[in-house]
Amino acid sequence: MKKINILDSTLRDGAQSEGISFSVSDKLHIIQALDDFGVSYIEAGNPGSNPKDIEFFNRAAEIKLNNAKLCAFGSTRRKNLAVEEDDNVLSLLKARTDVVVIFGKSWDLHIREILRTTEENNLELVYDTVNFFKKKDKELIFDAEHFFDGFKANRDCAVNVLKTADAAGADSLCLCDTNGGCTPDEILRITREIVGLFPGRQIGIHCHNDMGCAVANSMLAVDVGASQVQGTFIGIGERCGNADLSVIVPNLQLKQGYECINSSLSKLSEAVYAISEICNMPVPLNKPYVGLSAFAHKGGMHIDGVSKCARSFEHVEPESVGNKRRFLMSEVSGRTTVLAKLGRVAPELSKDSPETAAIVQRLKELEHEGYQFESADASFELMVLNVLGRFSPHFKLNMYKTSGEYPSPDGEMSAYAMLKIEVGDKTETAAAMGNGPVNALDLALRKALTVFYPEVSRVHLIDYKVRVLTAEKATAAKVRVLMESTNGEETWTTVGVSTDIIEASWLALVDSIEYILK
Amino acid sequence: MKKINILDSTLRDGAQSEGISFSVSDKLHIIQALDDFGVSYIEAGNPGSNPKDIEFFNRAAEIKLNNAKLCAFGSTRRKNLAVEEDDNVLSLLKARTDVVVIFGKSWDLHIREILRTTEENNLELVYDTVNFFKKKDKELIFDAEHFFDGFKANRDCAVNVLKTADAAGADSLCLCDTNGGCTPDEILRITREIVGLFPGRQIGIHCHNDMGCAVANSMLAVDVGASQVQGTFIGIGERCGNADLSVIVPNLQLKQGYECINSSLSKLSEAVYAISEICNMPVPLNKPYVGLSAFAHKGGMHIDGVSKCARSFEHVEPESVGNKRRFLMSEVSGRTTVLAKLGRVAPELSKDSPETAAIVQRLKELEHEGYQFESADASFELMVLNVLGRFSPHFKLNMYKTSGEYPSPDGEMSAYAMLKIEVGDKTETAAAMGNGPVNALDLALRKALTVFYPEVSRVHLIDYKVRVLTAEKATAAKVRVLMESTNGEETWTTVGVSTDIIEASWLALVDSIEYILK
Repeated sequence: MKKINILDSTLRDGAQSEGISFSVSDKLHIIQALDDFGVSYIEAGNPGSNPKDIEFFNRAAEIKLNNAKLCAFGSTRRKNLAVEEDDNVLSLLKARTDVVVIFGKSWDLHIREILRTTEENNLELVYDTVNFFKKKDKELIFDAEHFFDGFKANRDCAVNVLKTADAAGADSLCLCDTNGGCTPDEILRITREIVGLFPGRQIGIHCHNDMGCAVANSMLAVDVGASQVQGTFIGIGERCGNADLSVIVPNLQLKQGYECINSSLSKLSEAVYAISEICNMPVPLNKPYVGLSAFAHKGGMHIDGVSKCARSFEHVEPESVGNKRRFLMSEVSGRTTVLAKLGRVAPELSKDSPETAAIVQRLKELEHEGYQFESADASFELMVLNVLGRFSPHFKLNMYKTSGEYPSPDGEMSAYAMLKIEVGDKTETAAAMGNGPVNALDLALRKALTVFYPEVSRVHLIDYKVRVLTAEKATAAKVRVLMESTNGEETWTTVGVSTDIIEASWLALVDSIEYILK
Repeated sequence: MKKINILDSTLRDGAQSEGISFSVSDKLHIIQALDDFGVSYIEAGNPGSNPKDIEFFNRAAEIKLNNAKLCAFGSTRRKNLAVEEDDNVLSLLKARTDVVVIFGKSWDLHIREILRTTEENNLELVYDTVNFFKKKDKELIFDAEHFFDGFKANRDCAVNVLKTADAAGADSLCLCDTNGGCTPDEILRITREIVGLFPGRQIGIHCHNDMGCAVANSMLAVDVGASQVQGTFIGIGERCGNADLSVIVPNLQLKQGYECINSSLSKLSEAVYAISEICNMPVPLNKPYVGLSAFAHKGGMHIDGVSKCARSFEHVEPESVGNKRRFLMSEVSGRTTVLAKLGRVAPELSKDSPETAAIVQRLKELEHEGYQFESADASFELMVLNVLGRFSPHFKLNMYKTSGEYPSPDGEMSAYAMLKIEVGDKTETAAAMGNGPVNALDLALRKALTVFYPEVSRVHLIDYKVRVLTAEKATAAKVRVLMESTNGEETWTTVGVSTDIIEASWLALVDSIEYILK
């Protein structure tokens, strides 16, 4: 089995996507998810263009990675500066990664009009920069920016850039269709020629999706000998996005027998939903392999065909990528999936238990209201215990009042909350001020509960996400709140849905506390 | 220029898409839009499987089409029935179209397991059905279902089906990757072989997107001689959808010099948005050619490059497909980006004006606080006017108080807000109840302002988005609120950031109102 190295650029090229703005914590979570999935390289940022990235690279260096190598990305040195004096180049060293990715110009138009220098000088920039990092013992990937456009415009100029990077010691030469404007036929023909020119050297392919061909173009390059594929995990990136690795990886592994990742493809769906959640990008229904519709059958003939013989209308088994088959006209779906999730809470239930049917029914009702349990395992578990009659609440809310004020009555704090809870035959009333009503309510609840359950004092929230569900009614739309909590030992996620953001937050808060008390 | 015939199946294969359900009026509108755009064939439905389609075909026959021919779609005759006695076959005649599309089995697995007959009998079904319609003087397109899977499994069986359809007089032989599971390499190799076997006969290609390759696969088939491309205009279809014609058509016309449509490609965006509207499917931001982000530039280097020379980072001119270029704001963007966006507000400013420097400085401060102006053009405009000293607010907030309560004091409504605003030397106090404090505040503000500015009563919110910025501090994290508002004539977007979701919402609300009053 031939190995294909996958380089993920979600944190670098993906960050160029409209609407994307990663926090440091988002970035660290994405690195963890990509490493768990088993990609070979994670291009984590451009420390030269963004000084805040150095701090992030220092934190990233603390993560223990099992599969991937972190890469810092930057350009060749500036034209009038020695490589040792170029701040951008030096910032790549400060990132302390094992791998450095350097991009250089290979289209004469860019050398002339954008960089405003000569072809000779451009070759010097490439040589000096690549050589500098090789002397520092870095693994070096050279990205030939606009390579295909450059090759079409001036073949010698483009090839000389690759030859120079090769001579300077680059470990890998990556051909980029930076503008995403090359046809499959061109990618195939040009990559074949380059692979022939550099026998033994690893050739990479980096495609953009401006013609809707990035996935196929990457595959065609692999067909003729490229062995590194660059892209972003869910296809985000500037303009129309980068080559979508969540599609390319199963294509190459399931259809062509390549080995791309160090884990099971059955984790694909989970990884895509986790990364999409962090990006705050919903997964399109029709996304290949992992979309909710990817194995959904609607036409009567197709449903009949699939029932007789699954592969008659399915190109792979849905389970092989962690997805599931759905028949849209009937209500047959559900039980198998729910059963898979029930394992931990109620392993004694079977597909045909009446309890399973009741849980599926309750799940459907809640999903109809806007709940989503995919990433809220703790709330799912409580819901199941509730349906099975095995849950009794540890406290009861009698009332709360929250209040927000402008101008703030107390300097920074703009809101307060008071509440009264009941535990057994006792009650407790507490109040707190906070940054906004939800924060105040969170603090007041913990204060009141700690009287009865001291362990609650160790619980705190580590993530809080809000998604508006039906935007048509604007501020009266429904909101779904996801909360991630920890007590320092484990973390768990809960969900709440309401038209009122405070109530939705309250529901998720209550689940968070009940989960750890149960 | 070689002509490629485009066959659109939005109304037939597209109707198999999850969430799609066309009314007769929807279908008639789509036919009109496709004909205006200039496709060659419109596959309008399967009258055999849906009796209501006959009525629709009768109404469709009344539309005067300038470019396209309507097609009725159906299967080969049933195995135990003479062709003249098969209701499904006869219903295709009743549709009274000039063109009939007949699909037949070409994968031995399907012949055996799904149709449950012999290869010889299957050839009879194909011959009889094609011949029947040729005798009725129909133009006949033969769709070889699962052709590529069939060819891979049993070459002779698959090729014999095509030979039989050819011998029976089919005008066009279409090769279908029905399950969407074939690689670009396979599509290329097999189509090339078939084109060679049927010199002079029109060969069609029909791809599905289960591997994310439908567009490229269609183009590769054209590269080796296919001259009819089937797909759906915006790519909808069962599972992961059909080949997206709105991407294939500009690819073939702009990059390879084929003639696909009888109109100008500059109408492409308009046609995509019209058909998406009827399908009730939002156009993805990153959709090739027509998406809002398709020509959006965010990275500083890219913006600088495009400003120097557009084709340095754009594969085609945005105007050629009816789209336009956009420069996005981000923490890495510099003066060039800001200047490009200033055009509308302050066209007199240059890159070196001190005002431009002051605006960039203010922008950086706000971005540091968590603002993002990428899609909040209205807030950006107000910020610029503010820095330039050209903005005076139309009202001033003296105070607000919001209150949320559980149990709700008033049935559904869980919150109320009161506020006092100042306009000139007058003040107005108003209060409202709502679903949550933000909704209540929104209603109260409008109530108070309408006293001074009646036009405010026409403004309402159409979208409201919340993004938590730094989740480390959980409920005390900063939130960014994006609001999209309309007065029925135009729409605009504003942004607010605060640790308090109510205050962040208030800031976006104020911008929304000030924008329309300015």
